[in-house]
Amino acid sequence: MTKFNEQLLTPPSGFPDLTPREAIATQRVLDVIRKHYEMAGFLPIETSLVERTEVLTAKSEGEIGTQIYGLRLLNPAEGAPTDEKSLALRFDQTVPLARFVAANYGRLSFPFRRYVMGPVFRGERPKAGRFRQFTQADIDTLGNETLDVLHDAEVIATIAHIFAELNIGDFTLRINNRKILEGVLEVHEVKSTDIGGAIAVIDRAEKVPLQETIKDLNAFGENVKAESWIEKILSPRSTDDTLAFLKMISEKQNKENLTTGYNELSRVINGLRSLNVAEKNFTIDLSIARGLSYYTGTVFETRLEAHPEIGSIASGGRYENLVGTYVNKSIPGVGASIGVTRLVNKLIEAGVIETNTTSIAPVVVLSPSGEARGADYLALAQEVRTTGIACETYLVSRALGKQLEYANKRGFRFAIIAGENEFDNQSVIVKDLKTGEQSSIPRSDIAVYFATH
Amino acid sequence: MTKFNEQLLTPPSGFPDLTPREAIATQRVLDVIRKHYEMAGFLPIETSLVERTEVLTAKSEGEIGTQIYGLRLLNPAEGAPTDEKSLALRFDQTVPLARFVAANYGRLSFPFRRYVMGPVFRGERPKAGRFRQFTQADIDTLGNETLDVLHDAEVIATIAHIFAELNIGDFTLRINNRKILEGVLEVHEVKSTDIGGAIAVIDRAEKVPLQETIKDLNAFGENVKAESWIEKILSPRSTDDTLAFLKMISEKQNKENLTTGYNELSRVINGLRSLNVAEKNFTIDLSIARGLSYYTGTVFETRLEAHPEIGSIASGGRYENLVGTYVNKSIPGVGASIGVTRLVNKLIEAGVIETNTTSIAPVVVLSPSGEARGADYLALAQEVRTTGIACETYLVSRALGKQLEYANKRGFRFAIIAGENEFDNQSVIVKDLKTGEQSSIPRSDIAVYFATH
Repeated sequence: MTKFNEQLLTPPSGFPDLTPREAIATQRVLDVIRKHYEMAGFLPIETSLVERTEVLTAKSEGEIGTQIYGLRLLNPAEGAPTDEKSLALRFDQTVPLARFVAANYGRLSFPFRRYVMGPVFRGERPKAGRFRQFTQADIDTLGNETLDVLHDAEVIATIAHIFAELNIGDFTLRINNRKILEGVLEVHEVKSTDIGGAIAVIDRAEKVPLQETIKDLNAFGENVKAESWIEKILSPRSTDDTLAFLKMISEKQNKENLTTGYNELSRVINGLRSLNVAEKNFTIDLSIARGLSYYTGTVFETRLEAHPEIGSIASGGRYENLVGTYVNKSIPGVGASIGVTRLVNKLIEAGVIETNTTSIAPVVVLSPSGEARGADYLALAQEVRTTGIACETYLVSRALGKQLEYANKRGFRFAIIAGENEFDNQSVIVKDLKTGEQSSIPRSDIAVYFATH
Repeated sequence: MTKFNEQLLTPPSGFPDLTPREAIATQRVLDVIRKHYEMAGFLPIETSLVERTEVLTAKSEGEIGTQIYGLRLLNPAEGAPTDEKSLALRFDQTVPLARFVAANYGRLSFPFRRYVMGPVFRGERPKAGRFRQFTQADIDTLGNETLDVLHDAEVIATIAHIFAELNIGDFTLRINNRKILEGVLEVHEVKSTDIGGAIAVIDRAEKVPLQETIKDLNAFGENVKAESWIEKILSPRSTDDTLAFLKMISEKQNKENLTTGYNELSRVINGLRSLNVAEKNFTIDLSIARGLSYYTGTVFETRLEAHPEIGSIASGGRYENLVGTYVNKSIPGVGASIGVTRLVNKLIEAGVIETNTTSIAPVVVLSPSGEARGADYLALAQEVRTTGIACETYLVSRALGKQLEYANKRGFRFAIIAGENEFDNQSVIVKDLKTGEQSSIPRSDIAVYFATH
C-alpha cells in the first residue's frame, strides 16, 4: 500500500470542498431560497449541466465566451460516444432556460415561472476566493407575448423575502428601469448608438468622483452638459420623492422611454408594497443599470448595508428579447439570480452566517454497555426518530466519559444514556448537553421529554 | 431575427430535460431520501463535480475508466487557466468521498456519516434510456480503524425506510455477506485466486439455468462438485432458516471466513429488526455478491417486486480498504447508493410515480378585474402566503372563464376570485376546483378557510 500523493488530495483551485459545517450552512440558505421560490409559485425544471456547444456559444456575452468548458473523453474505448466536441458545461442558468422554453414552447403554460438551484461553470483564472464552479439559484417568469411588469415586482419581492428570512442584516434592493436612463440620455441628445456606453458610465458613477462621470458623459456630445442634471439623477431620495421627480420630468419632456420607464417603475414599486416588502429594504437608485446588455426595463441589485464590499448579493431584471430568439416568438421575461456560493462564502467570512453546527440531529444515543447491547441502542435511536427527531448513534467501545466528550465536541443538544440498569427498568437517562442537567425518565416518555425540552 | 436551428434545442442524448411535472416528482423523491438520511444522522458535505484527473483515474474500475469526461476550455483567452488537463468530472460519489476524507482526516469525527445527492457523469454510448449525467444519492459511514457492522444495518435500514415512505409497492432488500461466499468456496477447494471469478458466477446464477452455474463453478477445480451444494445456497428460505443453515455449516466447517461472515450477517439482521425494518422488506439472498471488487463483507441490492425488470434500485455494502489507501490508514466503510435518475425514470415509465402535478402551489389568485387591480391581486396572494400556503397569481387580461380554464389545466386545488364587488366589501370567492364548489368568505377568513379545507 503506497501512500497517495497528498497534494492531489486538495481540490483544484476554484472547486473547493465544503465540510459538514459549511455544507449545513449552505443547505440552510438553499432551503430558505427554495421555500420562498415555491411559495410564490415558481416551479422546478431540470436541465442537464451539459448543453450543446452551439447553444452556449450563441448566447455568451463578452469574456464568458472564453470561459466555457467543453468535455472530452479522457480514455475512450472502442465504440465510445463521438459527440464530445458538441458538449459543454453551462455557464449560467438563463441560456439553458431559454433553450428549454424554446424546445417546450407548445407544452408550457404561460406566464411560466421556473426556479433552478444548481451549479454553473466558468473557466476563470484561478485566484483566491474565485470559483470555477458555483451554485446559482435563479427565478424567471416568462410571458407569451406580454408580461405585466407586476411580475418584475413579484421577482424582486421574492428575493426580498428570502433575505429578510435569512436574517443577514440590513439589505437594500436598489431598483431602476433602464428605459428611464435611456430617456434621460435622449433628452440630453446622446445618440442612440452611444446610449449603451453612456449608461455604462452612469452605472459605475458610484465608484468614481462626480467630475469624472460628468467628463465621461460630456464626451458623448456637446449638448450633453451632464453637470446640469447628473447630480439630480444620482442623489438619493425617498422612494416617493424619486417617483414624484420622475413624474415631473416625464410629463415635462414627454419622451416615450421616459414615460414608459416611469410608469413601469411606479407599477413595480406599487407591487412591492402590495407584496409587503418593507420600505427600508428597497430604494429607487437611478444609477443602477446592470452590465448585461439583454436587460431592457426593470433592473435591480441588492446591497448588504453592513458589508457593501461584498457587492450585489442578488440581481436581475427584465429582458424582452432573450428567450424568443430561439423560437422566433416574443417571450418577454424577468428574472433574478442569487450567487449562492459566493454569497455564503462571503457571509461566512464576515461572520454573518455561523458555521458552528456540525450535527443536524439534535440527539445522540451513546453506548455505555458496549457492543453486546449494540442492537438495543439502534432500537433506542429508532424510538427517538419515530417521534420525528433526527438521532445519531455512537457505537464505539469507549468509556462513557469519552463518549460524552465526543457528544459535546460534535455539538449535540442531548445525549441518551442507557446502561444495564436502564435496560432492566425500561428507562433512559437524557443529558441536556447545554445545561449539563440529567434526567432519568421512563423510556415510554422519550417523546414527551423532547416535546417539552 | 433568424430562427435558431430547432434540432439544437433538443438536449444531447443521455442529458435529458425534466419538465416541471418530472422535476416535481424527482424533487419529492429527493426530499424523502434527504429526510431519512438526515434523520439517521448523516451529514452533508459538498465536493465539487470537478476532481483532479489523477484522483479519478487511480480509482476507476473496469469500463468506467474509459467513460471519464475531462474538461477543456473551448476558446481560452490569454492568461486563461492552464490546468484543464488535470480536471475531470466525477463518475461516482465514492471516490470524491474517499479523497475528501483523506484530505480532512484529522479534522473529522469518526464514525463519520455523510450523505450526498448530486450528479455524476459517465461517457457511455448514447442509447435510449441511458444517462450520461445522473443523480446519485449516497450515504456512507466511515470508521477510524474499526466500524461495528451494526452500521451496515443502519445504512440498509435507512434505505428501507425511504422506499417504505415512497410508497412504490413491495420491495425486498436482498442481503448477503461476501465472506460467506468466500468461505463456502474455500470449503469446496476453489483456489483463492479463483474466488473472485467463482463469486461472479454465483452472482449471475439467477439469470441463467442451474446447470450452467454448476458447470461454470465446476470449471474451477475437480473437487468443487457444485451439484452437491449450490442449490442449498441458492434456494430461498425464511431469514431465520437461512441463519440456522449458516450457523450449522459454519460450526461444522470451522472456517474463519464462513464463521465471521455468519456472525456479521446475523448481527446485521438483528440490527435491521431493532431499526423496525419490516420482515417482508428484507431477505438473506446468498447469491448476491455485487460486481465491484472493493466490497469485503455485507452486500445488498433492492428489488421492486412488481417490477423486477428495473433491476436493483439501491445497492451497496461494506468496504474495508477503499478510503484508507489515500492516507495509509485503516478506514473501513459501509455505504449505499440510490440511482435517483434511473429510479425515477423507470418508476414514471411503470406508472408507479405519478407526474400529474404541474403546480406546487395549491392556490391561484385570478384577476377578473384586470390590470388596474394588478397590485391588489398581488396583495391578496401575499395574504395567502402569510398563512403558509404557496400561491401563484394569474395576471393575464382574459375573461374569467378563460382564467378558470387555465387554473384547471394547471391543476390548482383552489382559485381565489375577486372582482369589484369583492374588493368593495372585503370578501373573496374561493372556488374548490376539485368539487366545483364556490364559497364567498370575508377576506379575513382566508386562513381559516384553508385550515379547514
